[in-house]
Amino acid sequence: MKPVFDSSAIRFDILRQRAYNLRWAEQEEGVIPLTAADMDFPCAPEIVKAVTDYAQAGYFSYAPKMGFPEFKKSISRMLNEKKKEPIPPELILPIDSAARAMSVIAKAVLKPGDEAIVCDPVDYLFKTSMEAAGAKIVLFPMEIRDGAIDFSRLEQYITPKTKMFGLCNPHNPLGMCYPLKDLDHILKLSEKYGFYIMNDEIWSDIIYSDAQFHSILELGAARNARTLSVFGFSKSYGLAGLRVGCLYAASPELFARAAEASQADSTIGGISSLSQAAGIACLDQCGYWLDAFLKHLEGNRDYALKRLNSMPGIRCRKPDATFVLFPDISSLPMTALEFTEFARKEYKVAVVPGGETFFGPGSEGHIRICLATSREVLAEGLNRLERAVLAVSR
Amino acid sequence: MKPVFDSSAIRFDILRQRAYNLRWAEQEEGVIPLTAADMDFPCAPEIVKAVTDYAQAGYFSYAPKMGFPEFKKSISRMLNEKKKEPIPPELILPIDSAARAMSVIAKAVLKPGDEAIVCDPVDYLFKTSMEAAGAKIVLFPMEIRDGAIDFSRLEQYITPKTKMFGLCNPHNPLGMCYPLKDLDHILKLSEKYGFYIMNDEIWSDIIYSDAQFHSILELGAARNARTLSVFGFSKSYGLAGLRVGCLYAASPELFARAAEASQADSTIGGISSLSQAAGIACLDQCGYWLDAFLKHLEGNRDYALKRLNSMPGIRCRKPDATFVLFPDISSLPMTALEFTEFARKEYKVAVVPGGETFFGPGSEGHIRICLATSREVLAEGLNRLERAVLAVSR
Repeated sequence: MKPVFDSSAIRFDILRQRAYNLRWAEQEEGVIPLTAADMDFPCAPEIVKAVTDYAQAGYFSYAPKMGFPEFKKSISRMLNEKKKEPIPPELILPIDSAARAMSVIAKAVLKPGDEAIVCDPVDYLFKTSMEAAGAKIVLFPMEIRDGAIDFSRLEQYITPKTKMFGLCNPHNPLGMCYPLKDLDHILKLSEKYGFYIMNDEIWSDIIYSDAQFHSILELGAARNARTLSVFGFSKSYGLAGLRVGCLYAASPELFARAAEASQADSTIGGISSLSQAAGIACLDQCGYWLDAFLKHLEGNRDYALKRLNSMPGIRCRKPDATFVLFPDISSLPMTALEFTEFARKEYKVAVVPGGETFFGPGSEGHIRICLATSREVLAEGLNRLERAVLAVSR
Repeated sequence: MKPVFDSSAIRFDILRQRAYNLRWAEQEEGVIPLTAADMDFPCAPEIVKAVTDYAQAGYFSYAPKMGFPEFKKSISRMLNEKKKEPIPPELILPIDSAARAMSVIAKAVLKPGDEAIVCDPVDYLFKTSMEAAGAKIVLFPMEIRDGAIDFSRLEQYITPKTKMFGLCNPHNPLGMCYPLKDLDHILKLSEKYGFYIMNDEIWSDIIYSDAQFHSILELGAARNARTLSVFGFSKSYGLAGLRVGCLYAASPELFARAAEASQADSTIGGISSLSQAAGIACLDQCGYWLDAFLKHLEGNRDYALKRLNSMPGIRCRKPDATFVLFPDISSLPMTALEFTEFARKEYKVAVVPGGETFFGPGSEGHIRICLATSREVLAEGLNRLERAVLAVSR
């Protein structure tokens, strides 16, 4: 069955009951949320079938502490085949969300007093997870030069206390992939100064046809002895509520440290067996669905880009990856938070504001817009956003 | 449909695929595991239906960070009605397992250098969770006098550094409920010295007809301002693999500290939406099933008790609660671990050894036997255990 990504496929009644985190269930009636990076479409039918088949037997006994072997095999195959990351199943730990994986990675290697370099802007989970482990956050301002992030000044931010660098690849919210030479540069610094890399690849499935994803792990297991990586199933397959992701490493020693920090061995950490059954279905059966979803997203990206760049004072870069856009609204006479509140209250469209809370101080003057809905909903959301922009530009 | 708890209800083929943590999937073919406290029966059909109904809609969007409101309402109702614990929904946090709840509670109030009093013996998660929070563990030896645990010397173990006492109510592995006067005594000490109580009530559904459960929260919200409690759905409803439990407190301030320590607000912490759907079904629909399960367990308890006490040199107390027995095997010429290995290898029955690892040093000379299977499997397991006892007693 060919997946459909128009409004007929969306169950708005269910979204209003179930879609939290700034989305349908948390907005006033009538507001269109283009907020949290979570899709409006139901998941692939193979996932529903896998979950119901697993449940039918009626057994939810203790699962293996280090995750289902089948799940780890599927993840390993996917990493090898789709991302050129040669990670064997035994260096993969299924875990209850990419967010938890980031927290575990930070806890595994950071101590109070350590410094950790976090890009500005980037998703708040880098800062949150590293701070929770006691590290002092050093912000690295991301400047874009000639269409790429300029890492030439990264070395200036490194001190003898630097213990970790947070790499969001592809980058949320900038939607950028990294050229291999930049990843090589970051890795050289990691080798030179001995800091760890928290490598978040949760967006690595959502790459547009005109872009190319490279993983830092392409540069070889030996050079990545200090890299700890994260993947998840919430973006590509719509499983945020099932809390399913994994962490992995090329180094057995480093993997063992992360596994210990996860507390999976004591059953304090762990992941639901049903969530793992869903994850296996994603990787083994839903490639066709992800391809179709990606094609739909690319159409949405191109459409939204054109619409946004035709709004007065709004500039938006074309993302290589992710299903979010991050337009610059700094020419409007309001902060991002003020504009976001205004657009939601007066024009019934919700987006995520740039600024300290979600993406760091360097994201001020921007908003983030989620594209993972039907063209019809996106168009209406952008119509409303345009009216809000026009209203404040007058 | 009346639930059936004989061998015809057990799917041994599924258990061999799914029941980990020292159970069927981790034992050699032919071994009967009476090990981890997890049932051999499938869960109630209402749970399967709730999970499949939820999954059918195909939406696994971000769930509310603090848990489904319906789930919290159901838990609150159950605590009030069944356990005389007056906890409103807003002081309940659904969480991914009782084990995680214990870890979060320890993290919420303990700091490195604090002392925490852990009973000896008791489930290893008290020590593990408190140590992970940096506390120094002080063991309180449990002596049984006149059929009750003697808490008269507890005060001697309290120092100015004591920050927490771990209360396992009912007690695993001793299977004991506490008279209200003992809970009052513990609470008086908490009030006098200002230490917190980690109150684990995961076993409070499994109370035999000749016993009475009292929660420390019966003594009033005001007096329990330093009590943080844990409940879970793995023992009573067989949902260990779904990782579903909750933490709760009578004090809004203390609850807020625990909620913050859970990291649910950042999405680092959280619980699967399907696991919550299953939990709601347990509380709203499966009371009849739990009653029948309990009746079956009581028959198993009485049977196993008689069998064990007729084995040479074995003495076993009658438990008030839990589906584990904890016989004293100290008259055998082997340590608990040696005997456990011997019984598994030579007689194909697996039990959990007393000793440091699982229950603390005070559990040496004991084994723990799980009763949550059919009478047939239990009888065969005990036949094998008896042969092992006779073999070493010769």
